[in-house]
Amino acid sequence: MTTLTKTKSVYFFGNNTSDGTGKMRTLLGGKGANLAEMTLLGVPVPPGFTICTDECEKYYACDKSLSESLIEEIKQNIHRVEEALNLKFGDSKNPLLFSVRSGSRVSMPGMMDTVLNLGLNDEAVKGLAIQSGSERFAWDSYRRFIQMFSNVVLGLEHHSFEHILADKKKANGVSEDTDLSVDALKELVAEYKALVEKSGNDFPLDPMEQLTMSVGAVFGSWDAARAIKYRQINKIPDEWGTAVNVQAMVFGNLGDTSGTGVAFTRNPSNGDKAFYGEYLINAQGEDVVAGIRTPNPIAQLEKIMPDIYQELVTIYKKLENHFSDMQDLEFTIQDKKLYLLQTRNGKRTAAAAIKIAVDMVKEGMITKKEAINRVTAEQIDQLLHPMIDPKAKTTVLAKGLPASPGAAVGQLAFTAEDAEQAKSEDKPVLLVREETSPEDIGGMNAAEGILTARGGMTSHAAVVARGMGKSCVAGCGSLHISETDKSVVINGKTYTENDWLTINGTTGEIIEGKAPLMQAELTDEFEELMSWADEIRTLKIRTNAETAEDCTVAKKFGAEGIGLCRTEHMFFEKERIQAVREMILSGSLEGRKKALAKIEPMQEKDFYDIFTILEDMPVTVRLLDPPLHEFLPHDKASIEQAAKDLNVSTKIVEQKINSLKETNPMLGHRGCRLGVSYPEIYEMQAQAIMNAACRLSKEGKSVKPEIMIPLIGEVQEFKMLRQKIEAIVENVFKETGTTVDYLIGTMIEIPRAALTAEEIAKEADFFSFGTNDLTQLTFGISRDDAGVFLPEYVEKGILASDPFQELDQKGVGRLINIAVEDGRRAKPNLKIGICGEHGGEPNSIEFCYKAGFDYVSCSPYRVPIARLVAAQVACD
Amino acid sequence: MTTLTKTKSVYFFGNNTSDGTGKMRTLLGGKGANLAEMTLLGVPVPPGFTICTDECEKYYACDKSLSESLIEEIKQNIHRVEEALNLKFGDSKNPLLFSVRSGSRVSMPGMMDTVLNLGLNDEAVKGLAIQSGSERFAWDSYRRFIQMFSNVVLGLEHHSFEHILADKKKANGVSEDTDLSVDALKELVAEYKALVEKSGNDFPLDPMEQLTMSVGAVFGSWDAARAIKYRQINKIPDEWGTAVNVQAMVFGNLGDTSGTGVAFTRNPSNGDKAFYGEYLINAQGEDVVAGIRTPNPIAQLEKIMPDIYQELVTIYKKLENHFSDMQDLEFTIQDKKLYLLQTRNGKRTAAAAIKIAVDMVKEGMITKKEAINRVTAEQIDQLLHPMIDPKAKTTVLAKGLPASPGAAVGQLAFTAEDAEQAKSEDKPVLLVREETSPEDIGGMNAAEGILTARGGMTSHAAVVARGMGKSCVAGCGSLHISETDKSVVINGKTYTENDWLTINGTTGEIIEGKAPLMQAELTDEFEELMSWADEIRTLKIRTNAETAEDCTVAKKFGAEGIGLCRTEHMFFEKERIQAVREMILSGSLEGRKKALAKIEPMQEKDFYDIFTILEDMPVTVRLLDPPLHEFLPHDKASIEQAAKDLNVSTKIVEQKINSLKETNPMLGHRGCRLGVSYPEIYEMQAQAIMNAACRLSKEGKSVKPEIMIPLIGEVQEFKMLRQKIEAIVENVFKETGTTVDYLIGTMIEIPRAALTAEEIAKEADFFSFGTNDLTQLTFGISRDDAGVFLPEYVEKGILASDPFQELDQKGVGRLINIAVEDGRRAKPNLKIGICGEHGGEPNSIEFCYKAGFDYVSCSPYRVPIARLVAAQVACD
Repeated sequence: MTTLTKTKSVYFFGNNTSDGTGKMRTLLGGKGANLAEMTLLGVPVPPGFTICTDECEKYYACDKSLSESLIEEIKQNIHRVEEALNLKFGDSKNPLLFSVRSGSRVSMPGMMDTVLNLGLNDEAVKGLAIQSGSERFAWDSYRRFIQMFSNVVLGLEHHSFEHILADKKKANGVSEDTDLSVDALKELVAEYKALVEKSGNDFPLDPMEQLTMSVGAVFGSWDAARAIKYRQINKIPDEWGTAVNVQAMVFGNLGDTSGTGVAFTRNPSNGDKAFYGEYLINAQGEDVVAGIRTPNPIAQLEKIMPDIYQELVTIYKKLENHFSDMQDLEFTIQDKKLYLLQTRNGKRTAAAAIKIAVDMVKEGMITKKEAINRVTAEQIDQLLHPMIDPKAKTTVLAKGLPASPGAAVGQLAFTAEDAEQAKSEDKPVLLVREETSPEDIGGMNAAEGILTARGGMTSHAAVVARGMGKSCVAGCGSLHISETDKSVVINGKTYTENDWLTINGTTGEIIEGKAPLMQAELTDEFEELMSWADEIRTLKIRTNAETAEDCTVAKKFGAEGIGLCRTEHMFFEKERIQAVREMILSGSLEGRKKALAKIEPMQEKDFYDIFTILEDMPVTVRLLDPPLHEFLPHDKASIEQAAKDLNVSTKIVEQKINSLKETNPMLGHRGCRLGVSYPEIYEMQAQAIMNAACRLSKEGKSVKPEIMIPLIGEVQEFKMLRQKIEAIVENVFKETGTTVDYLIGTMIEIPRAALTAEEIAKEADFFSFGTNDLTQLTFGISRDDAGVFLPEYVEKGILASDPFQELDQKGVGRLINIAVEDGRRAKPNLKIGICGEHGGEPNSIEFCYKAGFDYVSCSPYRVPIARLVAAQVACD
Repeated sequence: MTTLTKTKSVYFFGNNTSDGTGKMRTLLGGKGANLAEMTLLGVPVPPGFTICTDECEKYYACDKSLSESLIEEIKQNIHRVEEALNLKFGDSKNPLLFSVRSGSRVSMPGMMDTVLNLGLNDEAVKGLAIQSGSERFAWDSYRRFIQMFSNVVLGLEHHSFEHILADKKKANGVSEDTDLSVDALKELVAEYKALVEKSGNDFPLDPMEQLTMSVGAVFGSWDAARAIKYRQINKIPDEWGTAVNVQAMVFGNLGDTSGTGVAFTRNPSNGDKAFYGEYLINAQGEDVVAGIRTPNPIAQLEKIMPDIYQELVTIYKKLENHFSDMQDLEFTIQDKKLYLLQTRNGKRTAAAAIKIAVDMVKEGMITKKEAINRVTAEQIDQLLHPMIDPKAKTTVLAKGLPASPGAAVGQLAFTAEDAEQAKSEDKPVLLVREETSPEDIGGMNAAEGILTARGGMTSHAAVVARGMGKSCVAGCGSLHISETDKSVVINGKTYTENDWLTINGTTGEIIEGKAPLMQAELTDEFEELMSWADEIRTLKIRTNAETAEDCTVAKKFGAEGIGLCRTEHMFFEKERIQAVREMILSGSLEGRKKALAKIEPMQEKDFYDIFTILEDMPVTVRLLDPPLHEFLPHDKASIEQAAKDLNVSTKIVEQKINSLKETNPMLGHRGCRLGVSYPEIYEMQAQAIMNAACRLSKEGKSVKPEIMIPLIGEVQEFKMLRQKIEAIVENVFKETGTTVDYLIGTMIEIPRAALTAEEIAKEADFFSFGTNDLTQLTFGISRDDAGVFLPEYVEKGILASDPFQELDQKGVGRLINIAVEDGRRAKPNLKIGICGEHGGEPNSIEFCYKAGFDYVSCSPYRVPIARLVAAQVACD
């Protein structure tokens, strides 16, 4: 992929020869590169040419116009296409018609503009009539071209043309477009042109002018609102630009010997190795995608056009082998001749991605490393998404196509805006649409799942939903949707915005009410792929867990230890909270110790259980972190109850609550600051941890406790607390007559800790980056309060992403790098990990790997994702 | 000061010769070095020797004992003293007695132990009787020695001896010590010895044993609790250790030809060039200091002992000239012979320090640079605030944080309104609040001083009080304030509106009743010294000010511009707050703009006035910073009033208050985040600033507005807001037909801003470090909430000082250095300053100077301090 040798801006392909190759995605875009490659492979592709992506930027730089030299190159390439096909652009006998399509480096389906039948004018239409043998077809194509061009290039509204068309049908007493006579179509063309003229534009009759304007429009559509939105969601750089593919038109709608279809070389839903797709006879590609007619399964084509089907099979195998990946093909049959219009790596479900990757390794097509990189973190996430509990009793209301697997539950949203609004209020919704269009992207992203009345497995809704890993049921004919009433009738019953439905994208079922969901089961292929990931990666994966249940799940998912065992809940639980409150209300050390002594055995049992589950894996226990006021009751009734339980007056409880009130609790008396003020709390915890560990040790088990002190900002805090903890540990060793290996380390979650890491590393056995708090402090943003401005920041592009989701490498990352470098200078073998939410986010994992971390720790359900990503980054 | 040539541990002085010199303070301690130097100068000093400071460390290293070699050296030096005086240690005829005193590098008055009359035993006491001609004197000295030695060296309680003494006087029917007979004294000696024996010790009769034990005790007192505490407070390193001075005893209490005194070479109170001091005839030094007898002014000595007086005058002049500083002398006259026991640089009041420094420059004794370094920042501070008459007897009720220096007296006001009411009646009040908020501004301004129960050194109360130059004691936890009862309970006693209190903001003390105050005046010498400071320093000094009054004061104090003009108060003032609330409650851009339009002319007038006062000096205006909820009313009555004023329902106001509520307001929707959400606010402010500036420009005045955007964490915020502000500025230029030079810069107060300073510097004209917030975020400590643990941190030595008072160089300073370095890499001429509270703190100013800042900005009353310190650091 080099542009060093680039001397031209337009690349021809056709007749088994091509200026470009499949490697030139950056320059030619994905579609253009693949058209070139297919042509070189001898696959029948209508000839054409690709205008490079860098011309897109030049277009914007030149005040939205094409340069003279580019127009000259385009003309030369038109000539080459004319020669290849023996047709002539704009000719009245043998006219060459073009499609003009966008094609960026990565696929942005439906996001940008397309113009078809370009080259038609009052002369060429005659030639098309001769070519196709149908004057009706020619004039219908002409009037469609005017409509499309006027809409895409000139910006006129579709419906103005539709009105004229409707009037024309009415005047002619017909109900279908196809029933209009040639004369009526000719009148339509004239009326369409008049409409264009009325709008202040001249409809260009010069084919070259049509083409340059269309190319400009495609470049222009790169900056259309929906394209920008799509790029934001998919993190595609604005500066990439799109290429423009100008390709000779072929027609699938020339009668029963013509047709069009979309096919996948393997099943994109489950990954089965079987040719999979749909086709329509006498139709154009748009008809399949738009879901206006319901297409037939590809297998039926074998019976109707056996030769064509065989040719298609040969081609798909060649293409899959060539690209070493499952392909998504578009083809058109024009009068018994097969043309491939596009091939690309097919979008697929998570399950399919895994199965295909594993199968292809076994078939010798790809390596294990390649397989690892064929599956995305999002797909693993999707796989771990919930399904309907098979044991649950459900009422199936209707069935549509199982367009994107997984289940989703929500109230109903009938417009994209409503779905986005609901999302902002944290309300789960299903987006219910007749069919979706690119304008719905935002709403689809916001919804839990998507339900459409029309369209097939490759409809817009289906493709986009699978890409998003969202559940989708498509083409469910029994839905009767009223967007205006915001209601849907399913089998006679009406459901509105207030009703709940469940969809099962794996089966296509629509279920009444809220069905109980559960996690999907992991396949053998999944386990196999994960085992390869484990072979490749060097980064260890731990989990953030503190309940027996979470620990068990995380272990099942492959966690290699606990990176963050929060101990807060060990203070909160019912029987304990009273003792905790007793401690808080006590005015004396003695009183506090007495209360803590009640809690110690309970915590000891907690630790014993966790250590038992984790066996010989390391368990990092964070000592008490939240401020004490979190343990006190808040409302009047609870205060009264607490006072009663504690046998003190309500006033005393209220006074304590008042005295512990903080203006900024995030920056208050918490973490190790509590340990400094009340060392007895941490001492009790150290006692409980080590008692449990030593008990297990005496039972012959291996235990690896790692005691973590939170919120250190200054090494003296750590030194003081470490000393106190060590004294407790030594005492436990003496009393139990056994020892265990243990570490005492700290969270690095305060900027000052990162800045003074060298000093801290001399005292601490490990660093665990608490990137949640570190992000809050580095940005000066409270997560609890950011809701009112942070989304706006991401939307306006002030921040590339939400720093609480994806680690901010520039600011927070710089602090982390400083801490790692300084820490390892002081202690080369310092163990370093992360226990913030970022530990399960792919880009953040990559950062941690590059920064030299020993492990990342994340929530149990993200452990497989972390394993995969850790392997992917190790492949680079 | 080198130890390279050090070959011995004990340095002799006496008979005009000395092993050491005055330059060897590190080795000999201050006292020892000065004794050596005085001896070399020919000043009559009782001979003796100094045991070096490094022996102190060895003493601890050797398990608290003196090494053999050291004892050997001591013996040799005893011999030299014996020869010099022709006396013999422990002799029964001509005994040599020693004083044993500590002496560290810097003076630690009264902190360590002293033993006098050492060398007395049952034999030597006879010799002393012969020498002194008084058996009574000899035995009284002996019994005193036993008591002192037993207390200091053996650790016996003073009062046990005092009991025996009291019994003895009773038995002898006398009331004064001096009335005891020789026999009675002899009995006392025996009884004292018996007491020592009973305690399990042997009272050592061997003089050498007495000496080695005493030397050990002095070394040991280096680690006495009070000495450690003193070092903590005064930041003296533990490893310095103390020297021990062993010096021949001379006696001022040998009758009317003997005496003792303390003198200063200039008046330590006002700096007048006149010999100043006190003496007592027939007394020991302790008697002068202890105040048991009232001493006579030194001038009277001229009449009584004219020769001695002349000798003393000659000596004091010699010493002052030699040390080029005002000296504090101790002398003893033993039987008509004058001995100097000590000279050191004398402590002095602020006024004296300034006068002496300026006078000495004029006398040609010191340079201007030296003069600058003779005055401390604390002295300047002291000079600028009223203080409690040091002679007054006061009762301290409690102690809080010394939040804003100076003293204030008043009756108590428990609300801002009450304080304002009192002011209107010319009644001086102290505003007593749980903590203050921006709504209390009026009351704070009206009050003489401010006293709060919560909040630290940079709490609202503290910052505002310092800005106003008003005394403030903050965070006094022993206050229990009831706003409803209008009373405060301090240590169990209740004070109401009718009671008077005095606060000392320099010490944090709360004093009962009305303490007498005295006002320091700014002298010509002060102005002269400051003008020298201005010649020397390179760092510019600006002020944090926003009212005409503050601006005028700051200018008078020498401010060279405004580094922080907060604009909050321009929104708070009575007539404006309604428009501000109207803006906040408005749901539309249009509504907000309408409300802002009402505020604009008022702010424009504010800026016009400020620019007019500051003339051609730069004025940095910070755009709105606090979260919007601060502008809404808090209590029910105000909410109802506000609703009525705004003509909306109470519910609407309450809803808005609720929707703006934040968990951690410090980390919330404020600063430039408001500017991003509501650009119209900053646009209005930019409009007001530039309208005012252009008006002045048209009037032929020079204006230098610097617009400062707060809370930037990411360069995109800055870019976006700068663009919007520039558009406004361009428009004002166009409309007014004039232009002014202006800058747009940012506060660096968020760690991420410091970490991404290179990017920000490319866009910003200046950086101003907001070290208050930067410290909060770097430490993760809310200054509003730190009161409950931060004092403990400093007390326990976890932090060396309160980072909100003194800039934390290790953590926050590292961030600042990163930002300065990266910022100047991007823009070498980037203007850099500080506008946090640290801008007026000496160590922090030194840091800023070294970090390469262009200016510091501080509250008006700290401007002279900053000028001085900036000159001092430039001298280094």
